[in-house]
Amino acid sequence: MKEKPGIGPGQIIRRKESGALEYLHDELTIEEPLEIRIGRKTLATTMRTPGHDEELAAGFLLSEGIIRERRGLARISEAGANIVVVDLAGGVKVKLQSVQRFGTISSSCGICGKNSIEAIRQHFPPIRSTSIRIDVETLLSLPARLREEQSDFARTGGIHAAGIFEGNGRAKIIREDIGRHNAVDKAIGRAFLDGALPLDRHLLLVSGRASFEIVQKALAAGIPIVAAVSAPSTLAVNFARENNQTLIGFLRPPAFNVYTHIERVILEER
Amino acid sequence: MKEKPGIGPGQIIRRKESGALEYLHDELTIEEPLEIRIGRKTLATTMRTPGHDEELAAGFLLSEGIIRERRGLARISEAGANIVVVDLAGGVKVKLQSVQRFGTISSSCGICGKNSIEAIRQHFPPIRSTSIRIDVETLLSLPARLREEQSDFARTGGIHAAGIFEGNGRAKIIREDIGRHNAVDKAIGRAFLDGALPLDRHLLLVSGRASFEIVQKALAAGIPIVAAVSAPSTLAVNFARENNQTLIGFLRPPAFNVYTHIERVILEER
Repeated sequence: MKEKPGIGPGQIIRRKESGALEYLHDELTIEEPLEIRIGRKTLATTMRTPGHDEELAAGFLLSEGIIRERRGLARISEAGANIVVVDLAGGVKVKLQSVQRFGTISSSCGICGKNSIEAIRQHFPPIRSTSIRIDVETLLSLPARLREEQSDFARTGGIHAAGIFEGNGRAKIIREDIGRHNAVDKAIGRAFLDGALPLDRHLLLVSGRASFEIVQKALAAGIPIVAAVSAPSTLAVNFARENNQTLIGFLRPPAFNVYTHIERVILEER
Repeated sequence: MKEKPGIGPGQIIRRKESGALEYLHDELTIEEPLEIRIGRKTLATTMRTPGHDEELAAGFLLSEGIIRERRGLARISEAGANIVVVDLAGGVKVKLQSVQRFGTISSSCGICGKNSIEAIRQHFPPIRSTSIRIDVETLLSLPARLREEQSDFARTGGIHAAGIFEGNGRAKIIREDIGRHNAVDKAIGRAFLDGALPLDRHLLLVSGRASFEIVQKALAAGIPIVAAVSAPSTLAVNFARENNQTLIGFLRPPAFNVYTHIERVILEER
């Protein structure tokens, strides 16, 4: 971690558009492993961009359904450069028994040791109908606001961003990471640590695609509207529909797509 | 799986650039879980785009270091829509004992149950120096070739692609998936099943970013050159340098960056 968090130096040879070569120092997104421990036991290791590690751990525990309430967390502390230790409050039982323990475990995107879609689904309650609506102009302003708040994404092209916004478009929490899931975990982890859940009057915007897990992480934080700059998957759409979440994709002003629960978008046909 | 593999229907409301709304059927990338079993034991579940599931399983086993040689695999077969069963050859010991078993397990990108970077590194042998070189014109032709071979990526924007190319630019294997890692596993899995490893005269091109794991998967297949359309991470660069792999990023003709081992790129400064 230098003066620019999450960014490290790289020495490269660039072929410019003219065909000429230049030898230069560039910036690269830092990727390092973070080990998350509960007490003395290793829970998981993630490849992440350093920074906001406690938030990442909190968001991960929340979205995996391991803890559900703020008071269940006694402390999260760093125990070395790439280790965070979570101490649970007395009496809190970790639901590790519900977790499939056998199996190899990968840091591959999408690979896990759980043995069915049912084990992957965490069964958070669906969004209640009394939640925010957002107007089109505000919605269309969000990608630019996400970029404004980002420090490095535009420059390196290697960092994903997740932003939690209020219904009026104000940015509440913006986090970045080399992994989309980590960026979302950091953002919802911050809100969780602040005791701000459920975020039932907020919107989550992610810089990339919306997979099933992104939408489920939003649900874990009680977020009723999920918007993505890129495409959603079939499972993300089905999950959002079932759980009363509004799912917006290809949010690229002035265009966007709405896949589910359009009633939360205040549309005026021109 | 309809007539277009990996693509399912979606009903959407689109706000067009003019501001007008249209109601239409669109296409979405299918995302479903795939359970990989060794015999009767569940090894892992991945969220993937259906198709080429045996290849995905083979590539996963290879890049996780669980099997190293083709003869170790007796059979891979489907046991239902979203389950593949791997039967190992008699006498083959799965290195599951080297795998960290405790821990919650996520399908989050980058989250795993391994407890250190050393457990994540699989210690494949580095690339030997006697391997291919590629000229700039061929290199610059590859992104277009990858797109030509892709069926759906351009249309839905939700599918990643991985292509294995020969040194003359001929496409050997192209695979697609909602997850970058899965697309790479499918491509190297196909080569592994064909007994074509090591791919020491080939190049891997991925449609997105190059993380540490993408470069390691290439190493598992013996691939000396890895190119990505987007950015590499610090760890990807360091790993490639250590293992004598050429790493190219931002391959966006006519420009690209070379991060490591440029001696395999035949450069002529104009």
